[in-house]
Amino acid sequence: MRVTIDEMVAFCKRKGFVYSGSELYGGLAGIFDYGPNGVDMKNNIKKEWWKSHVQIRDDIVGIDGAIITHEGIWKASGHLSSFGDLMLICSKCKNRERADSFLETKLNKSFAGINSDEVNMLVTQNKIKCPKCKGIFEKCTDFNLMFPVMLGEGNKGYLRGETAQVIFNDFQLVVNNSRLKLPFGIAQIGKAFRNEISPRNFLFRCREFEQMELEYFVDPKEKECPYIKGYLDFEVQVKTYDMNDHEWMKIKDILDQKLMHSWHAYWLVYELKWFLDLGSNKENFRFRQHNKNELAHYSTDCWDMEYNFPFGWKELEGIADRSDYDLKQHREHSKKDLFIVDDFGKKLVPHVIAEPSLGVDRAFLVFMFEAYYYNKERDNIILKLHPKIAPYQIAVYPLVKKLSEETKLIYDELKQHFNCIYDESGSVGRRYARADEIGVPFCVAFDFDSNDDKKCTIRERDSGKQIRVSIKELVLIFSGLICLGKNIRDYSEVF
Amino acid sequence: MRVTIDEMVAFCKRKGFVYSGSELYGGLAGIFDYGPNGVDMKNNIKKEWWKSHVQIRDDIVGIDGAIITHEGIWKASGHLSSFGDLMLICSKCKNRERADSFLETKLNKSFAGINSDEVNMLVTQNKIKCPKCKGIFEKCTDFNLMFPVMLGEGNKGYLRGETAQVIFNDFQLVVNNSRLKLPFGIAQIGKAFRNEISPRNFLFRCREFEQMELEYFVDPKEKECPYIKGYLDFEVQVKTYDMNDHEWMKIKDILDQKLMHSWHAYWLVYELKWFLDLGSNKENFRFRQHNKNELAHYSTDCWDMEYNFPFGWKELEGIADRSDYDLKQHREHSKKDLFIVDDFGKKLVPHVIAEPSLGVDRAFLVFMFEAYYYNKERDNIILKLHPKIAPYQIAVYPLVKKLSEETKLIYDELKQHFNCIYDESGSVGRRYARADEIGVPFCVAFDFDSNDDKKCTIRERDSGKQIRVSIKELVLIFSGLICLGKNIRDYSEVF
Repeated sequence: MRVTIDEMVAFCKRKGFVYSGSELYGGLAGIFDYGPNGVDMKNNIKKEWWKSHVQIRDDIVGIDGAIITHEGIWKASGHLSSFGDLMLICSKCKNRERADSFLETKLNKSFAGINSDEVNMLVTQNKIKCPKCKGIFEKCTDFNLMFPVMLGEGNKGYLRGETAQVIFNDFQLVVNNSRLKLPFGIAQIGKAFRNEISPRNFLFRCREFEQMELEYFVDPKEKECPYIKGYLDFEVQVKTYDMNDHEWMKIKDILDQKLMHSWHAYWLVYELKWFLDLGSNKENFRFRQHNKNELAHYSTDCWDMEYNFPFGWKELEGIADRSDYDLKQHREHSKKDLFIVDDFGKKLVPHVIAEPSLGVDRAFLVFMFEAYYYNKERDNIILKLHPKIAPYQIAVYPLVKKLSEETKLIYDELKQHFNCIYDESGSVGRRYARADEIGVPFCVAFDFDSNDDKKCTIRERDSGKQIRVSIKELVLIFSGLICLGKNIRDYSEVF
Repeated sequence: MRVTIDEMVAFCKRKGFVYSGSELYGGLAGIFDYGPNGVDMKNNIKKEWWKSHVQIRDDIVGIDGAIITHEGIWKASGHLSSFGDLMLICSKCKNRERADSFLETKLNKSFAGINSDEVNMLVTQNKIKCPKCKGIFEKCTDFNLMFPVMLGEGNKGYLRGETAQVIFNDFQLVVNNSRLKLPFGIAQIGKAFRNEISPRNFLFRCREFEQMELEYFVDPKEKECPYIKGYLDFEVQVKTYDMNDHEWMKIKDILDQKLMHSWHAYWLVYELKWFLDLGSNKENFRFRQHNKNELAHYSTDCWDMEYNFPFGWKELEGIADRSDYDLKQHREHSKKDLFIVDDFGKKLVPHVIAEPSLGVDRAFLVFMFEAYYYNKERDNIILKLHPKIAPYQIAVYPLVKKLSEETKLIYDELKQHFNCIYDESGSVGRRYARADEIGVPFCVAFDFDSNDDKKCTIRERDSGKQIRVSIKELVLIFSGLICLGKNIRDYSEVF
């Protein structure tokens, strides 16, 4: 049986992963703090994304822009006029509900892209009342999600509603000093803020959240990607807006049916593979094309990677084709030229063929759901987190307390390279269980023989298998196990 | 001749380190974006701080809390009533100046801790007018630096003015699930926001900035630190509030004169050593005790680590003794018990003996100033950044373009482990200069002999010295050079 979202909330609090924000004063809806175990896991997720999307790629550079941004950016982008949700307010108790998701729960049907007239009609037809006080709803209104802030001089700024616009704002600066050639990407990790009407489902829909976002620019005449070949046989569950249900399809078939440009397909698969490479199960992911009336104001086509959450299949990551919408808007509003010079010396406004945009918090939640299970034999929770994203990679134990001095030498060495825990309290079995519960993939135990044979025991979390290895080789072995994806069986006789 | 702050601003923009925030729309005062070279350097600084303050320490855990925070937190902390600056507004053109720093520049004297009556008197006595329009200033007023935001339901929240309060808010949650014993610390890296009246000096005083902060809790009966011994002979420039000028003093002498508790001294030196270990020059740092009337409302004693900026000696990092001010305030306001149980089972409200609080952006600026110099012989700027914080660790070159295929194999391997640049355009000399200017500590060149002897050349940025090494040992050699602080002379014959 799968863990529910409420059980996950309780587990995350109990184990120091995630707390409600401002909990001491009753909390704030849709705002969360990461605790001692959550912070390292979150940082590891960001590190892995940066490594795979920036560090190892020649065609992508990163930036880290400010959260407080000029009003002009959001006028140009359309966020001040069109970045809202339809809201129902109870005429009696003033309870607020986000119309589309509220009706979806009430009527058990998707209402993505619904307009306010349709909402009012559905509310009347179905005699829908306020769930809190049974009052009648006022007419549906549009609620803008941007947070304004007043700067010292009396200027209005906004907390960015997405990191993307800061990338567009910096586009020309980056192009001018990065010597990039099309196609290329600009990536950013950072917080964004949306004044959600009804934040819900824990880390899934927050008011303050962190994005890992990437704008991939191409020459509009060259939307086909030379690297797609290796992906042609890759199978994914796909539903276009005119299909009735999802089907397993190969990328090759998607392209044959011309459902999207190959750079767009490339990025969909790249994003899915990122999750799979970090240990996720392919069956829990699928792709869905947006309905025409559901598309955001800036995109010409958009595909969601959805995840099978305990509360249903939901958007995990949107990958939009934004064309030249944003650069054109910013050229017009800022009266500045935004362009790149192509190989023939001609100025060109590139298109964003794909914008992989993943929430750090949603990714965190997905990895938690993928990892969490109850092991009957051990009678404890095991978090099967990939070693690269687990908050700690290694727990170091003396078999008994009087071996603590020698064990700490091992700990002191290992923690220079990895996140480690030292634990000497309680039985070794109890310590293994504690490590299982926060997803520590490897434990090292120093025992009575260790002083003589200069060896210690490594225990693997998921299999429970153990190997005995030389103490002086520990750093090298763990580099292999954690960073190079080696298996415990690659090193020695397992017992 | 040292680089000026204006030259540094221009350099950072030209080389893709730092841009003005929202530049496309004229910029926002005191708000900055980090460009492709800045982002990796900034991330490396944060990584090194986290490693030395959390990862390798048994006594410190981390959190990552939200930016939007409950009004109650800031009422309790005193920020809503006392976190302001004195402001002078021109009665004619409405120009705003922060009174203390404005008078300091005008009258060339420190006015830390000045009150509004004193400001008004000084303005009158010295006939000080608005520097923009020569208008007369209105009476000095108190300006609160906190940024309010309105949440969906009509609740007021605040962008946190410091990360510290989020640590206090989460104190009990962390204590409950981290099995910590006094003394211990809770650390956090994240953004904070202050509506500065006159942001200035580039990254030095921003409205949006990032903090690396740590609250170190002790039993109030045990303020002496057992680890201080190794530091006793460490020399620092020190000025207490009743000394006329700075003197070089040993920590031992500071403690003999009982200027502060040893845990407080320990953290001062720990913070200084962090900068020195990353290649900074001791002469550019000094400690200064706050005047009694300059102390923030929460602290009983505070020492600044100051840095010799081109615009004068200024606070780099404040290290306050906050005693039990914050936990007491939050107990009172939240009506919740905040405590830790000591070894005898007794509840205890610990004291914050030291709060090392360093701005990421200020640290970034310091490392830039420490690194920047013009090399006459090479006729280019060299950024002597420590390999651990340089944006790229390695630049990989083919001697000529037709060797690019083999060279890229080396690049593909190295970038799995380090931040690398591949560069094949222009002469090797020109490429070295480009790498020097963004602080790349090592270059690898693949030449005509490399195919035969399976070796390539490593060139060290600062000395210009070169060694020829086996290609298959490159990863290991760079691990030594970058992560373990080895020197190029440790590996082979230098030429």
